[in-house]
Amino acid sequence: RERLRVFVDAPAFQRVIIVVITLNGLALGLETSPGLANGYSMAFLVIDRLVIVIFVVEIVLRIAAQGKAFFRDPWNWFDLVIVAVALVPASESLSILRLFRFLRVLRLISVVPGMRRVVSALFTAIPGLASILVLLLLSLYVAAVIGERLFHEAAPQHFGNLGKSLFTMFTVLTVENWPSVAEDVMAKEPLAWIFFVTFIVVTAFFILNLLIGVIVSAMET
Amino acid sequence: RERLRVFVDAPAFQRVIIVVITLNGLALGLETSPGLANGYSMAFLVIDRLVIVIFVVEIVLRIAAQGKAFFRDPWNWFDLVIVAVALVPASESLSILRLFRFLRVLRLISVVPGMRRVVSALFTAIPGLASILVLLLLSLYVAAVIGERLFHEAAPQHFGNLGKSLFTMFTVLTVENWPSVAEDVMAKEPLAWIFFVTFIVVTAFFILNLLIGVIVSAMET
Amino acid sequence: RERLRVFVDAPAFQRVIIVVITLNGLALGLETSPGLANGYSMAFLVIDRLVIVIFVVEIVLRIAAQGKAFFRDPWNWFDLVIVAVALVPASESLSILRLFRFLRVLRLISVVPGMRRVVSALFTAIPGLASILVLLLLSLYVAAVIGERLFHEAAPQHFGNLGKSLFTMFTVLTVENWPSVAEDVMAKEPLAWIFFVTFIVVTAFFILNLLIGVIVSAMET
Amino acid sequence: RERLRVFVDAPAFQRVIIVVITLNGLALGLETSPGLANGYSMAFLVIDRLVIVIFVVEIVLRIAAQGKAFFRDPWNWFDLVIVAVALVPASESLSILRLFRFLRVLRLISVVPGMRRVVSALFTAIPGLASILVLLLLSLYVAAVIGERLFHEAAPQHFGNLGKSLFTMFTVLTVENWPSVAEDVMAKEPLAWIFFVTFIVVTAFFILNLLIGVIVSAMET
Ligand code: NA
Ligand code: NA
Repeated sequence: RERLRVFVDAPAFQRVIIVVITLNGLALGLETSPGLANGYSMAFLVIDRLVIVIFVVEIVLRIAAQGKAFFRDPWNWFDLVIVAVALVPASESLSILRLFRFLRVLRLISVVPGMRRVVSALFTAIPGLASILVLLLLSLYVAAVIGERLFHEAAPQHFGNLGKSLFTMFTVLTVENWPSVAEDVMAKEPLAWIFFVTFIVVTAFFILNLLIGVIVSAMET
Repeated sequence: RERLRVFVDAPAFQRVIIVVITLNGLALGLETSPGLANGYSMAFLVIDRLVIVIFVVEIVLRIAAQGKAFFRDPWNWFDLVIVAVALVPASESLSILRLFRFLRVLRLISVVPGMRRVVSALFTAIPGLASILVLLLLSLYVAAVIGERLFHEAAPQHFGNLGKSLFTMFTVLTVENWPSVAEDVMAKEPLAWIFFVTFIVVTAFFILNLLIGVIVSAMET
Repeated sequence: RERLRVFVDAPAFQRVIIVVITLNGLALGLETSPGLANGYSMAFLVIDRLVIVIFVVEIVLRIAAQGKAFFRDPWNWFDLVIVAVALVPASESLSILRLFRFLRVLRLISVVPGMRRVVSALFTAIPGLASILVLLLLSLYVAAVIGERLFHEAAPQHFGNLGKSLFTMFTVLTVENWPSVAEDVMAKEPLAWIFFVTFIVVTAFFILNLLIGVIVSAMET
Repeated sequence: RERLRVFVDAPAFQRVIIVVITLNGLALGLETSPGLANGYSMAFLVIDRLVIVIFVVEIVLRIAAQGKAFFRDPWNWFDLVIVAVALVPASESLSILRLFRFLRVLRLISVVPGMRRVVSALFTAIPGLASILVLLLLSLYVAAVIGERLFHEAAPQHFGNLGKSLFTMFTVLTVENWPSVAEDVMAKEPLAWIFFVTFIVVTAFFILNLLIGVIVSAMET
């Protein structure tokens, strides 16, 4: 077991996996070309299967090497789910599962220690931001409900129902295309500018504070 | 009174209120669906009334528990206004008061201590930013007046009167759609680019300094 | 002279000037309404003249009080230019001078000490940013020249001459509407995306560093 | 040799080169005007040749003065490549080489010590950002592959092939025009908003962390 661990932790072993993931990523990209996808469909299938086999072998080796410790690291769970989903029979019509083929490329993060550290750092930053994020989501929801109530007749294309209204307010949150949305509404409700300007100023202020929160917490560590 | 205070401050009491606010928020969202609003209009009315009753009982209990101290906390005033407005007879045609129904969801902020702290922190940041904010508003106003004077004939759709001009300059402040506004004006006033480029550069510089102001003041605390 | 200085520096004196500037600003805003401008043209003229007279008296008093020291403060020069331009006969056809009427509102900055301090702080931040700003301008110029050379035939509406090309690259710098510009060009020059993506990535990097420069220098003081 | 070095390092020598580069930049700008380019084509050719001659002499002198040390500074390699490319015969149809004429203006960076320092500082910041940049590129690639797979039939104008899909996702990364892209796709795939909102939130979070990374590393130095 000790020798297995040494083998599994060896840089050479990791480098092989990185190469396999990269090749997998390139194959997925090339497969988007209809010409290549038809002409070499067999090759793409073989690559796909081969990658899964290598991933399965890799995970089995790592479980064998680390034992229970393997299951304590959330990154290993990420790898496990990616591989497990790949083994679900493709005949199953859950097309969402097929998306996991593409997420396999993200294993590059779990394999390269430097990337792993960066993403872990990102996750540790989230709790400190939770309250502001909740505040943003709350504002988005309240604004969407108010928007639907006030403007679903004036501009049904933007505020026709709560779903559309939520999407519209999210686009306004990114400040994208908002003057055109506002003008559509203002054609019938001239005071609608109050709603949009207030929403932009308030959320800009929240995002500003989100930013400051991250910087301050980054300073402290 | 002491026992009342213990009861009111109990996490269980707060959790009940949080659940009520959340249910209220969900009901307001579901009510946007015409099908549900018509089919269950009675249910929505009952929920709305029930929420108000619970809020009134809650506030009365808290006033009884805290006495005069209740009125010293601005958050309690926020709660009080939200509830008071709900008791104004709906027959009154002040439709703006009906908006307060939706703002009731924001009581989530005043109830959860963590959210309360974050929003309080936001408010304490404002005084330090006041001068830059005034500078931004002043620039917006001066630019809108100049814009109306120079371009109200060249592009009446953007600068036809001071109101339109203020709205246009606010959209330019968000950098949104400004090339199209500028091109509309430049079709008749080729030198108008000077106005827009200057405004964008100057306000970008102000916003940059707004950002720095917040960061520096965040560092100091 | 000493008594004059006490009088000029008195908060009451400053408050009067602030009120005058604010009234002037409001009058300029109201004057944009054709109805008011025609109906009360005499009143607006009187206000305008009165403001100038007050400003002249104020400046004369301040020069008398401070003597040569008056001319050492750049803020006083700002006030002096604003007032001097107001005295140039209106018959003169230099319409650019009429813009100074609107800039008079900016005297609010030179009069309120708090605003003065903020704007001074902004100016002291500029030298530290000069190199990055030069770098940004240089990139803008080089990109505009290259853009004109490569695309003036493919998209004459965006890159027809150096002026248009500079304006286009400035709009791309604000990231506004760039996909539409890029697609216009790519219709004839499919590789043009390299030019736009490179420009956006490089300038985003410069602006990121501009931001950091300001933050770091703000920290040090 | 020592005297040569003193001569080459003299501020006067550098100032001459700065003037030459600036004149070269102005000439390149003026040359974009068809009228000037035709009327003074000879003058522009002479200026161009003269600039190259001066650059060659300058580089030869600097190599003579510094010897092997010259080749140790990457900035000198930058100057060398710019000049070397200028000497490649123009008859050669590698039009990409002609772009270097315009990049010659960037020698302003290598000549002015202040600019040199700023750009060097930019480059030293890159390694610390490498992991987040890789993460951003990886997300862009995975999103483009998924986008092409899911939407190449729903919106061929945005996701028709991997190239288009990569360009589209880069524009979404700049948040520019994304509501219109999303609506094109959502007309056929109503759930596509999940894809776009997720991508924007995740990349905004990455860019936020990129920003923090730069600030923190700037603080440490
Ligand atoms: Na935008
Ligand atoms: Na836009």
